Amino acid sequence: MSSDVRWLTGQEERVWRRWLTLNARLSATLQKELHDDSGLSMPDFEVLVHLTDSPEGRIRVTDLARLLQWERSRVSHHVTRMERRRLVQRVECAEDGRGAFIVITPQGRAAIEQAAPGHVETVRRLVFDVLSPAEVDALAKIIEKALAELDHPAECLPVSLNPS
Amino acid sequence: MSSDVRWLTGQEERVWRRWLTLNARLSATLQKELHDDSGLSMPDFEVLVHLTDSPEGRIRVTDLARLLQWERSRVSHHVTRMERRRLVQRVECAEDGRGAFIVITPQGRAAIEQAAPGHVETVRRLVFDVLSPAEVDALAKIIEKALAELDHPAECLPVSLNPS
Repeated sequence: MSSDVRWLTGQEERVWRRWLTLNARLSATLQKELHDDSGLSMPDFEVLVHLTDSPEGRIRVTDLARLLQWERSRVSHHVTRMERRRLVQRVECAEDGRGAFIVITPQGRAAIEQAAPGHVETVRRLVFDVLSPAEVDALAKIIEKALAELDHPAECLPVSLNPS
Repeated sequence: MSSDVRWLTGQEERVWRRWLTLNARLSATLQKELHDDSGLSMPDFEVLVHLTDSPEGRIRVTDLARLLQWERSRVSHHVTRMERRRLVQRVECAEDGRGAFIVITPQGRAAIEQAAPGHVETVRRLVFDVLSPAEVDALAKIIEKALAELDHPAECLPVSLNPS
């Protein structure tokens, strides 16, 4: 292997692996609890959360893809499966040419209202009951720093704007 | 909705959503980089990491499932696909009745050795270059607290062992 690779230190590698383990464990536990409780999958739940967040309970496929960080094709396939279960409905808007809206149905609203209390309780028990307020603050700062790097990589800043 | 649900506070909900966003963004970025660079998927890479970590480059399906936090059937299907690409090999051990070993092949070793430098560089750039040493320490503590809760839920401690 190349000698100029900046390998992770022992501690960094351990933290990174434990981070991956935590995410795999949390996601498996939340998925199981949600499914046992309500029959919804995590992707179903995430789609419904974004729809109930939007003022009229409807979002365009493109905007949903951005909010979920999914490929457009994945959103489209998943919405088709949710449509068959009558949780959402696709409404074409031919007049403006900007593509279909996904609209939450009354059944979709009932499903997320039934699922949310148990899901939130599990998130609280596994994450927020475990951490002190100072740890939640520290975690929030860490998350924002990492997201800022993903959104605006440091190396891509135009140097002419950094004269110092 | 039930009024005795312990809903998340505004800050908790924001932190939780940003955590999910960070994980989705990191995972999409790492997956894309790894695939463009080496043709491996993240699941391929994780399987190969565990195999190269084991002394003889071999692990039983059951142990691999535990290490990856996957269902046994998912491990089995994934290993079949990796076998077709000659990255791993399944070796039956009829004598001890404890199931097949998955063994890394020379091609598997070559693939992970080729993929690792770019992958590690991306993890370093997106996570460890962004955080201060104190933040890495804080993150490590937060991860361990959450994993401890997942491994040994507080409510399941036998009360007789906690007389105070």
